[in-house]
Amino acid sequence: MKNIKAVENVTILTMNENRDIIENGVVVIGDDKILEVGNNEIREKYKEAEVIDGDEGILIPGMVNCHTHASMIPFRSLADDYKDRLKRYLFPLEQKLVNKELVYIGAKYAICEMLLGGVTTFCDMYYFEDEVAKASKELNIRGVLCESVINFPAPDSKEPFGGLEYSKEFIEKWIDDSLIIPGIAPHAPYTNDDESLKKAYELSKKYNVPLTMHVAEMDYEYDKYVKEYNLTPVQYLDKLGILDENFIAAHSVLVNDEDINILKERGVKVSHNIGANAKGAKGVAPILKMREEGINIGLGSDGPMSGNTIDIITQMNLVGKIHKLFSNDRSVLPSVELVEMATMGGAKVLGLDKKIGSIEKGKKADLVLIETQSVNMQPIYDYYASIVYSANPANVDTVLVDGKIVVRNKKLVSGDLNFIRNELIGLKKKIYDVAKNL
Amino acid sequence: MKNIKAVENVTILTMNENRDIIENGVVVIGDDKILEVGNNEIREKYKEAEVIDGDEGILIPGMVNCHTHASMIPFRSLADDYKDRLKRYLFPLEQKLVNKELVYIGAKYAICEMLLGGVTTFCDMYYFEDEVAKASKELNIRGVLCESVINFPAPDSKEPFGGLEYSKEFIEKWIDDSLIIPGIAPHAPYTNDDESLKKAYELSKKYNVPLTMHVAEMDYEYDKYVKEYNLTPVQYLDKLGILDENFIAAHSVLVNDEDINILKERGVKVSHNIGANAKGAKGVAPILKMREEGINIGLGSDGPMSGNTIDIITQMNLVGKIHKLFSNDRSVLPSVELVEMATMGGAKVLGLDKKIGSIEKGKKADLVLIETQSVNMQPIYDYYASIVYSANPANVDTVLVDGKIVVRNKKLVSGDLNFIRNELIGLKKKIYDVAKNL
Repeated sequence: MKNIKAVENVTILTMNENRDIIENGVVVIGDDKILEVGNNEIREKYKEAEVIDGDEGILIPGMVNCHTHASMIPFRSLADDYKDRLKRYLFPLEQKLVNKELVYIGAKYAICEMLLGGVTTFCDMYYFEDEVAKASKELNIRGVLCESVINFPAPDSKEPFGGLEYSKEFIEKWIDDSLIIPGIAPHAPYTNDDESLKKAYELSKKYNVPLTMHVAEMDYEYDKYVKEYNLTPVQYLDKLGILDENFIAAHSVLVNDEDINILKERGVKVSHNIGANAKGAKGVAPILKMREEGINIGLGSDGPMSGNTIDIITQMNLVGKIHKLFSNDRSVLPSVELVEMATMGGAKVLGLDKKIGSIEKGKKADLVLIETQSVNMQPIYDYYASIVYSANPANVDTVLVDGKIVVRNKKLVSGDLNFIRNELIGLKKKIYDVAKNL
Repeated sequence: MKNIKAVENVTILTMNENRDIIENGVVVIGDDKILEVGNNEIREKYKEAEVIDGDEGILIPGMVNCHTHASMIPFRSLADDYKDRLKRYLFPLEQKLVNKELVYIGAKYAICEMLLGGVTTFCDMYYFEDEVAKASKELNIRGVLCESVINFPAPDSKEPFGGLEYSKEFIEKWIDDSLIIPGIAPHAPYTNDDESLKKAYELSKKYNVPLTMHVAEMDYEYDKYVKEYNLTPVQYLDKLGILDENFIAAHSVLVNDEDINILKERGVKVSHNIGANAKGAKGVAPILKMREEGINIGLGSDGPMSGNTIDIITQMNLVGKIHKLFSNDRSVLPSVELVEMATMGGAKVLGLDKKIGSIEKGKKADLVLIETQSVNMQPIYDYYASIVYSANPANVDTVLVDGKIVVRNKKLVSGDLNFIRNELIGLKKKIYDVAKNL
């Protein structure tokens, strides 16, 4: 065994089945895995371990961002308050500006932000996903990376639905990787046709990889399926036969009880993206009802043009507040459930709960240390509430992914943030010149 | 003229009437006031100035927190997800634990958090407000400090309504101070009677000082007034004749069109406290309608047991998202309007708009520098959107209040945060011992 590390002087929120909390806890890591979780006495067995002093912080499992478009970060803060932003700004910007270089630089910058904010695994839907994979490997983040399939020429394909061909090659290239889980992403029901949806599903089934899609997000999407087929979007997808346990439905705002039952029966997972759904005035996905039915729910930031930040601490806070408000009940979704959705819930959504999502022996060492020295973090009577309602992403002090330290003392150590920031800012003028004429 | 400072290398969001934005801006400060606002050329005239390099950050007017109970910060993260938290936890905790020392220590810690998060003026409602004034002077924050009046024995008075007597003395003591604006705070309509409300109003009128009250926040409050008097809380207060331009109505969630008309006619100001109202499942105050009618709206965090953080950046983000969601329109409340509510809007609510709220010649030098180097802050196409949707309180780099530097390089310089944190943590065990038996 090499590379023994011990994280100590922390309170561990294990997020295991018992939701054990260990004060004065120690986590011993060997290579990429957690060897032991316990109190100070286990340190005796690992005297040679590299010590990571947690400084009385809170150690949680790495957070999971179940839905984003990382490489859109060069566009962040553009057209934030515009109506019909998707068709008026977002699609044209992508057509004119998105290329391999932008996707690579954008992904690198976004990954820096995610790691610095405690996200250790993200599920991405975009173009040139091979560039996102390259960026993920360089910076050492776990990525469920899904190439988009869409019914018009895309940045990486002259023909509509070019993502199908791209995906086959992409999946075969990455399927055995330790950090990258390749998948496929039909953009939405209304931007695909039956044939492309079925082909995407077949690829997902053949390779047993995730398929993710924007589902029941847009009012015009919902209206189209009800009007044309007398079916909701979920019912339409179910009739096509493409809903299964590999299916990650992003958003799922406009779903009724029958839809929820379908999602449950088929084992579909849901990424709840409340920040983007609120800012975009899309509505509130009925996740309380979904959770009652046993559907797995994880949290997503959506893309940085929608969100706009892509950490998950911000999302926990919003999910709690907005669902309490909508339920007219301040007791719904207690903080522990929000931390669960941000960690183990997300792991389940991405089909990775055997590997990540909790701090337990044998799991991958994806760990996040939240410091408790900053002014906003004291006092603490309830660790979960402090993370959900007091913390912000700047309280993340140290992050490990796959046993490697990627953030320490709030600084990125797996890459050169200044260099990456300059690359990002280099894209700005060109983007602004295009955007101002839209 | 002494104490000349020049803040340079910043983009200035002046929040003046034209909402001028000055890139490569300079603000020259003399003693407590802004001498000039402009570009680099004005630096020539002030060669002796102490330079504050803004490092390409964004300079905004100091933010205003229009409603909080600062000294409740020792209770933060207690009983977050409980129903009927106010009567089951909050009032009993106050009865058993709140004393002069706790108010002083709590106020100091809360003021540290506010200053570090860019709040330069706050409106407080609590007990022992003289302790809050002492803490405010020590740490150099502007405070509109209002002693509570309530119909049961309070921590600082054996008799009900003791706050009336306290207030008279308190107002006379502080009325000519440069930083402290004393006021009076009947807790709520339902925790007062007609006589105490009228007496509080008379004090406010006699000294021409603010009167603030929780108004139309609770469903049982609304039901009581409708049932007993066939009037809404706002209509009841109006019938008593106590609504005027010194009246700051906190919350104002349960108000109808007639109420809005009354608030407008009487010149009442409103503190909108969306974070606490959401987390407490209280509802969404109809501020869009109020703004249309010309009512002044500022933002408040409410107390740290409700909010839980007491900065205003967090509130801007929530106000934007939640109102877009509730209006089913992503274009309502564009970012500039949110920054306005956080600065000039708050200044108007507290009756301080001649002194603070914008970066203009002759105003008090209450300034906040938001750095743009952190990963979450780039890229920036829209300065307002970046502050509202990208920033968090940890991006506040430098803060001046009344011309004095109180925060520099994200560190408090007007006090010893470590010392104050230890005092706060010293209160924790006793509080926990009481809380666990409630």
